[in-house]
Amino acid sequence: MGQNLILNMNDKGFTVVAYNRTTSKVDAFLANEAKGTKIQGAHSIQELAAKLKTPRKIVLLVKAGPAVDDFIKQLIPHLEKGDIIIDGGNSHYPDSIRRTKELEAQGLLFVGSGVSGGEEGARYGPSLMPGGSTAAWPHIKPIFQATAAQVQGEPCCDWVGETGSGHYVKMVHNGIEYGDMQLIAEAYDILKRGLGLNEDEIAAIFEKWNTGVLDSFLIEITTNILKFKDDDGEPLVTKILDKAGQKGTGKWTAIAALDAGTAVTLIGEAVFARCLSAIKEERIRASKALSGPQREPFKGDKQQFIDDLEQALYASKLISYTQGFILMRETAKELGWNLNYAGIARMWRGGCIIKSVFLADITKAYEKNHDLESLLFDDFFNKAVHKAQPGWRRVIAQAVLWGIPTPAFSTALAFFDGYRSEIVPANLLQAQRDYFGAHTFRVLPGKENAKLKAGEDIHVNWTGRGGNVSSSSYQA
Amino acid sequence: MGQNLILNMNDKGFTVVAYNRTTSKVDAFLANEAKGTKIQGAHSIQELAAKLKTPRKIVLLVKAGPAVDDFIKQLIPHLEKGDIIIDGGNSHYPDSIRRTKELEAQGLLFVGSGVSGGEEGARYGPSLMPGGSTAAWPHIKPIFQATAAQVQGEPCCDWVGETGSGHYVKMVHNGIEYGDMQLIAEAYDILKRGLGLNEDEIAAIFEKWNTGVLDSFLIEITTNILKFKDDDGEPLVTKILDKAGQKGTGKWTAIAALDAGTAVTLIGEAVFARCLSAIKEERIRASKALSGPQREPFKGDKQQFIDDLEQALYASKLISYTQGFILMRETAKELGWNLNYAGIARMWRGGCIIKSVFLADITKAYEKNHDLESLLFDDFFNKAVHKAQPGWRRVIAQAVLWGIPTPAFSTALAFFDGYRSEIVPANLLQAQRDYFGAHTFRVLPGKENAKLKAGEDIHVNWTGRGGNVSSSSYQA
Repeated sequence: MGQNLILNMNDKGFTVVAYNRTTSKVDAFLANEAKGTKIQGAHSIQELAAKLKTPRKIVLLVKAGPAVDDFIKQLIPHLEKGDIIIDGGNSHYPDSIRRTKELEAQGLLFVGSGVSGGEEGARYGPSLMPGGSTAAWPHIKPIFQATAAQVQGEPCCDWVGETGSGHYVKMVHNGIEYGDMQLIAEAYDILKRGLGLNEDEIAAIFEKWNTGVLDSFLIEITTNILKFKDDDGEPLVTKILDKAGQKGTGKWTAIAALDAGTAVTLIGEAVFARCLSAIKEERIRASKALSGPQREPFKGDKQQFIDDLEQALYASKLISYTQGFILMRETAKELGWNLNYAGIARMWRGGCIIKSVFLADITKAYEKNHDLESLLFDDFFNKAVHKAQPGWRRVIAQAVLWGIPTPAFSTALAFFDGYRSEIVPANLLQAQRDYFGAHTFRVLPGKENAKLKAGEDIHVNWTGRGGNVSSSSYQA
Repeated sequence: MGQNLILNMNDKGFTVVAYNRTTSKVDAFLANEAKGTKIQGAHSIQELAAKLKTPRKIVLLVKAGPAVDDFIKQLIPHLEKGDIIIDGGNSHYPDSIRRTKELEAQGLLFVGSGVSGGEEGARYGPSLMPGGSTAAWPHIKPIFQATAAQVQGEPCCDWVGETGSGHYVKMVHNGIEYGDMQLIAEAYDILKRGLGLNEDEIAAIFEKWNTGVLDSFLIEITTNILKFKDDDGEPLVTKILDKAGQKGTGKWTAIAALDAGTAVTLIGEAVFARCLSAIKEERIRASKALSGPQREPFKGDKQQFIDDLEQALYASKLISYTQGFILMRETAKELGWNLNYAGIARMWRGGCIIKSVFLADITKAYEKNHDLESLLFDDFFNKAVHKAQPGWRRVIAQAVLWGIPTPAFSTALAFFDGYRSEIVPANLLQAQRDYFGAHTFRVLPGKENAKLKAGEDIHVNWTGRGGNVSSSSYQA
């Protein structure tokens, strides 16, 4: 990753000094991949610092966690005020918040930058999501924006915001990636087990979808995957064990959503779907003990159903991004960040796993209105979700009757229906909480009276027993 | 809470010494509620310790967090080896794990006990879930089991397991409570907005349900709530603001599930549903910008639909408890706890918010087979879920077409359908992860060949570009 990023920066005309604590790696790099370039090597941190112009701009690509702090500690004695340390690893954002504060207190600048796109992205244009010390941005902007992927002449890199926001946004990006992948997996499952199509037929559908609203890297590679044959001519994907790995950022996003009290249900379900996939042996036993509905061959209009499915996938994806942007908005409020929402969508348009045409539309929505409360309030997406709605519902209802699991499709629709409900049944929850725990409730606006006063915490003696005392100690 | 628990223990013939750092509260208690009882007071920790027989059994009911550690610190100088400190607050289980270790290292015993049932439970019989230093159990068993709620002659208290397991199980209990409440709320919503019934009609349905498989405290109080009229004759519940409060243990359970990598989706959705309820003002705006399907009057057999709904609620609840017990099982494995599953279900049968007939059936299932892998594998529940299945599917499909959100019903069914799937589409996820990040995959058993070897991490060059090198650094 580090080598590829260096080669990429070198291609763009910047002079880069490579350093690795295993100095033989530096020599090997200079003698091979970097041969004939302007890339220089350093065999010590002292040498690295000496070779860099001030303000020094040092990108760390080391394993997230204590290794980052160790490296920073080693660097500090060799740096001067105004120098910039950039952490390009997969650090958890609270660490980046802390590091920004610690380094700024010492007169240094810190940037925590999300870097997406894997090895290939690093080499030919990643999505870069830098945030941290705002004063660092003008110094790194030319390098970062030149190095990043370019989409229609615009770099997939912009300043995200304060302290840990770069790594935060990268985390949300990864969570959204989990969601996108799960949605595609559910569509594949419905086409395979529901409509009974084979991998070639499904590949053709994804290939077509990739020319429309779903046009994206993940749909493209899904097409390629479904077409990929093993030596015996069987689709390789059918020979792959259905246990999905997961660690880190998808889970972090779901936990961050729970902590922020925002309903990021689709990413949550996507993470849990991977958890369920992981207990393969238990599922095999369950498949023998639990039978589903008789799955009769589909009798309706297949092409209509496939079109419905495209709309279901699109609408669910729209909900997932809506949730992701709500999460970023709420976190920004809480942490006092000024997030660059249009810029975030722009950064994700290219160079990363979730790159898509869709993200260009999100960019436009936030460019039109930086304070857009929700993607669903943007004209373009508002029309899109209404158009998608009938098919979306038909697909889920059919999958439910078929017995094909659609946790992500279903939770997206449930969010949509809850979100557009002026009244949800949480009034009953509040009554229950007041009944058993004297947790109190508020009156619904328009229903106030002498006993039910606006702005007051109201407790009712539901049973005639017990007092009118509200409880603060029992947590339900 | 503390006073009620003391009065309860006194009723059962135990001599209790009351202490509060605000000593006037002790005096007031002795002069009023405790007048004429054998309850004694203490005005200092020293006096408290002096009045207790060894091994001392001291129950703390203070705010979870640092206050517990502070109190323990103050107690220690007055205690002797073998004395028992019991934390009856809503502590987070990692704290209880730590406290068990710290106190055992000093020759003391620690018990972290879940206490459920609120003020009334504390007074007349709570559900008590003690875990921690196993050597403490014989000393506190007679007191705890006499003080706890009794169901059919059996106490709702048993030894849970090691270290923090008591508070862990209480946390899962609270998470399950969130789930139960959300399921009831969704059923209410479907009856109200879907079938167009009023609160009296819905109350009659819940009243009937409370004589069947759903017989439980929460169904009972829901009936009472729906019948409860404001002074003008309107059901009070319709005047309650639909913003549900939530803090603490529901969220903790969802986070614990994510950390343990177990698919506890229903509690997750229940927590998120509360989050969504909380953004009331945004929902009002969304209700104006987003329209749902035309909701036509229900034309089918209403009673059949109501019976379907009962089965949907029952089956979803069964999935929620299945998930909760899987979570406890996985956590027990990880932390080396020997959990008493039958005992846990027995403790929840009475004295707490989730008390129900259903829990007696869970108790039986684990009494028959302590190593039961999943509730769905137990004969009784296996039959029950198969019986419920057709109605469960019909209800969700109908709600989806109506535009009524059923996040908990839907996720329960999605889990069921995923759980009973020998193959889930995670093979595609693994292919994608290998395609874009060289994350490798394993071969599906039965599909091995010369290139796809069992037990090996396999990477494929999907595009013809790039090498056959697997990646360990890029996390997706």
